[in-house]
Amino acid sequence: MTHHAQPQPPPAQPADLVITGCTVLVHEEAGERHSFTPDAGERLSFTPDAGIVVRGGAIASVTTAEAAAALPAAERIDARGQVALPGLINCHTHAPMVALRGLAEDLPTEEWFNDVVWPVESNLTARDVELGARLACAEMIRAGVTCFADHYFAMDTVADVVAECGMRALLGQAYFSSQGREGREKSLDFALRRRGGANGRITTALAPHAPYTVTDADLAATAELARAHALPVHLHAAENRDQTEHSLARHGATPVEILDRTGVLDTDVLIAHGTGILDRDLPVLARAGGRTAVATAPRGYLKFAWPTTTPIRALRSIGVDVGLATDGAASNNSLDVWEAMALTSLVQKQTEGDPRWLTARQALHHATLQSARAVGLGETAGRIAPGRPADLVLVDLTGPHTQPVHDLAATLVHSARSSDVRTTVVDGRVLMRDRQLLTLDVPSVLRELERRLPTLVERGHGGRVQTYDT
Amino acid sequence: MTHHAQPQPPPAQPADLVITGCTVLVHEEAGERHSFTPDAGERLSFTPDAGIVVRGGAIASVTTAEAAAALPAAERIDARGQVALPGLINCHTHAPMVALRGLAEDLPTEEWFNDVVWPVESNLTARDVELGARLACAEMIRAGVTCFADHYFAMDTVADVVAECGMRALLGQAYFSSQGREGREKSLDFALRRRGGANGRITTALAPHAPYTVTDADLAATAELARAHALPVHLHAAENRDQTEHSLARHGATPVEILDRTGVLDTDVLIAHGTGILDRDLPVLARAGGRTAVATAPRGYLKFAWPTTTPIRALRSIGVDVGLATDGAASNNSLDVWEAMALTSLVQKQTEGDPRWLTARQALHHATLQSARAVGLGETAGRIAPGRPADLVLVDLTGPHTQPVHDLAATLVHSARSSDVRTTVVDGRVLMRDRQLLTLDVPSVLRELERRLPTLVERGHGGRVQTYDT
Repeated sequence: MTHHAQPQPPPAQPADLVITGCTVLVHEEAGERHSFTPDAGERLSFTPDAGIVVRGGAIASVTTAEAAAALPAAERIDARGQVALPGLINCHTHAPMVALRGLAEDLPTEEWFNDVVWPVESNLTARDVELGARLACAEMIRAGVTCFADHYFAMDTVADVVAECGMRALLGQAYFSSQGREGREKSLDFALRRRGGANGRITTALAPHAPYTVTDADLAATAELARAHALPVHLHAAENRDQTEHSLARHGATPVEILDRTGVLDTDVLIAHGTGILDRDLPVLARAGGRTAVATAPRGYLKFAWPTTTPIRALRSIGVDVGLATDGAASNNSLDVWEAMALTSLVQKQTEGDPRWLTARQALHHATLQSARAVGLGETAGRIAPGRPADLVLVDLTGPHTQPVHDLAATLVHSARSSDVRTTVVDGRVLMRDRQLLTLDVPSVLRELERRLPTLVERGHGGRVQTYDT
Repeated sequence: MTHHAQPQPPPAQPADLVITGCTVLVHEEAGERHSFTPDAGERLSFTPDAGIVVRGGAIASVTTAEAAAALPAAERIDARGQVALPGLINCHTHAPMVALRGLAEDLPTEEWFNDVVWPVESNLTARDVELGARLACAEMIRAGVTCFADHYFAMDTVADVVAECGMRALLGQAYFSSQGREGREKSLDFALRRRGGANGRITTALAPHAPYTVTDADLAATAELARAHALPVHLHAAENRDQTEHSLARHGATPVEILDRTGVLDTDVLIAHGTGILDRDLPVLARAGGRTAVATAPRGYLKFAWPTTTPIRALRSIGVDVGLATDGAASNNSLDVWEAMALTSLVQKQTEGDPRWLTARQALHHATLQSARAVGLGETAGRIAPGRPADLVLVDLTGPHTQPVHDLAATLVHSARSSDVRTTVVDGRVLMRDRQLLTLDVPSVLRELERRLPTLVERGHGGRVQTYDT
């Protein structure tokens, strides 16, 4: 399916939304290039003085500002001085964990899990998850995030919040083998009941926690269910180098090899982190039967002092998409995907010892099309193009910190900040306009959350939802 | 000189400015601890529901919100939900280089200098520097920066801009030995003429460029002048590991050893970057006769793919202060010291392989007292305390990305952003209020700068101000 931006004659019905005067980030059609290039960033371009016409939740056309201005419209946005980008996608998070932001600071991974996060999560109620999800969605909408892949507990409440606030999401109910068969069954039940919800904005995944908390048998059963029900799998794997080494010592196989031998790689799988992916894993990933993608959340890897980051250059060399993510705010301290975009570029340059690698254009490609493909929305999100849902953000570049503009991609990635997003649109609906949230009431969420926090963070009971022991 | 916060009887004259309802970051007096601890972050605390009273440009008292509210005042700020911090200090920048933001992307250091920056700087006029400085000051004030250490050309115009916009600055006229004796003389002339300017807000330094562009003889002469005139020295040294290795190969000495043998370390010296500082340099720095400090600007080191970062842990172990910096926007892409604060914490954790190192409290200590001492203002800036100039910022923590607050230091360093600074005050004068700049007109600066850019960035002439050849 190929669409081309072109002026269209004004139809009788007013457009739902017309945005005028912005510069638009445009992706060339994949089919317009003859060969695959890992440096897909080159396929981006910017169209100045453009107009975007939205009808029925979708982009009707990308045209000139002048042509768009002439169209009747129910709602208009004058976006001069702004850049329209596809909405950012948070490819791996635990949104409700914003309630724990700052609770477990400066700790090694094992203590972070065993001494704080998993004990606290044993107190978690559906109401905590709901409030956390509302706060998280508010934060993400304000940061220009239109879609997130969430992997957590009590996901029905997260799905309800997504429906209510207008975002798009890939949702999965997390489980450990320690929960017995019930964990997996609930994950499937959730995925089947809620997929396609919220007018199609909700997609679902099976969500085993990780190869170190889910047995091979359960992973194999999950892969079977994923194939039977055409569901993707979203899980943590090879999060860090220690996990890979422990896996080799215990099982004689890397986490990726375990995903391979349990059939998980024959499904469409979204792997969180992968900083422990080794060279020997690359041929395994390259021959995977399903669509494999990795989500990178570089801030947390630095904060946990992990020795490596996601090997993006190696993954791109075998055609694996790498989407951007923040992980949960209990480790990352924010859900700021814009920061993840900049950090991915910076950390990858330093890791590869190559300042020419992971340019701003490449970073934008990770943030848009690759992230969309990573969450299974390669045909839906990630591009501003006719026929696609209108999931986009308007970024104000008039601030002194983003001027002058010698290189627009560099300005966006390295100078602009998430706070420069003025307007966030999902499915044609404006969720934030001029920095004002239109679908969420943050003060009321915070009032109730504050009251609940003392009970939520109580750890005197000595219990935990799971033990970290890779 | 010791001051204690205490309620004071209202004097007859109204206060110039009263800020009420904020939480204030307070530093314990150095003398209140018996021993030096490298982990100086522990000396920070937060006083909630406070009031700050400003008279004659200085903090008159830090008291309760209630006591402050009862005082008559010419100007009031209701700062409930906000945190008052000492204004951030950019310990090493080339402010006017914002004009080149994004012009030299994804290049190795040598090409960045030789192919773009130094050719372009040969076109530089005083008017370009003036416009760049205005834009840079606007960006910094909006980012909560109250003071910057600038190292550039045509510094009289920068001093004029500092006087006009109300910031505080340590200014030095840069020179290379390739300019002959004149370069050094102009640097001295500037430093003597402008120090103490702008009601004392301007301090000055001698500013040789670096040991690889300034001869040992010129460094020795600079050290002599610094001692004779009681001026500090601000220069680049051991910027990266390559420079140190080339210095060893060419001169048999590291850049730090060259600073030692030329007498520069007997002056008060501010060393930019120092990512090439080796273990053998530590005893040299430890026995330096003057006050030695290092400015770290971690973003650029990642972007240039340098293999190391500033060795903060080693420097702290010998008592060297490490201030935060952004370098120029041509490499860093912004003057966002807040980002430098967060990145310093993240990068240092990863570099040291220790998640417990460089906590948020330590990062705040680097951002405040250590940065103040690094720019020679240890008795002036860096603390909100009675008798000190009122250089402070108010940070709004009501946004969803900074809630809830389990650990205020972590919220400030890892969740808040420079865009959360609502108000910036220097010497008691409000330079930004509720995100509105009060002393600079950005649109008029940008209009003129845009017209001048084509001439500024022209590189067809083949000239350059200097050649990078370490």
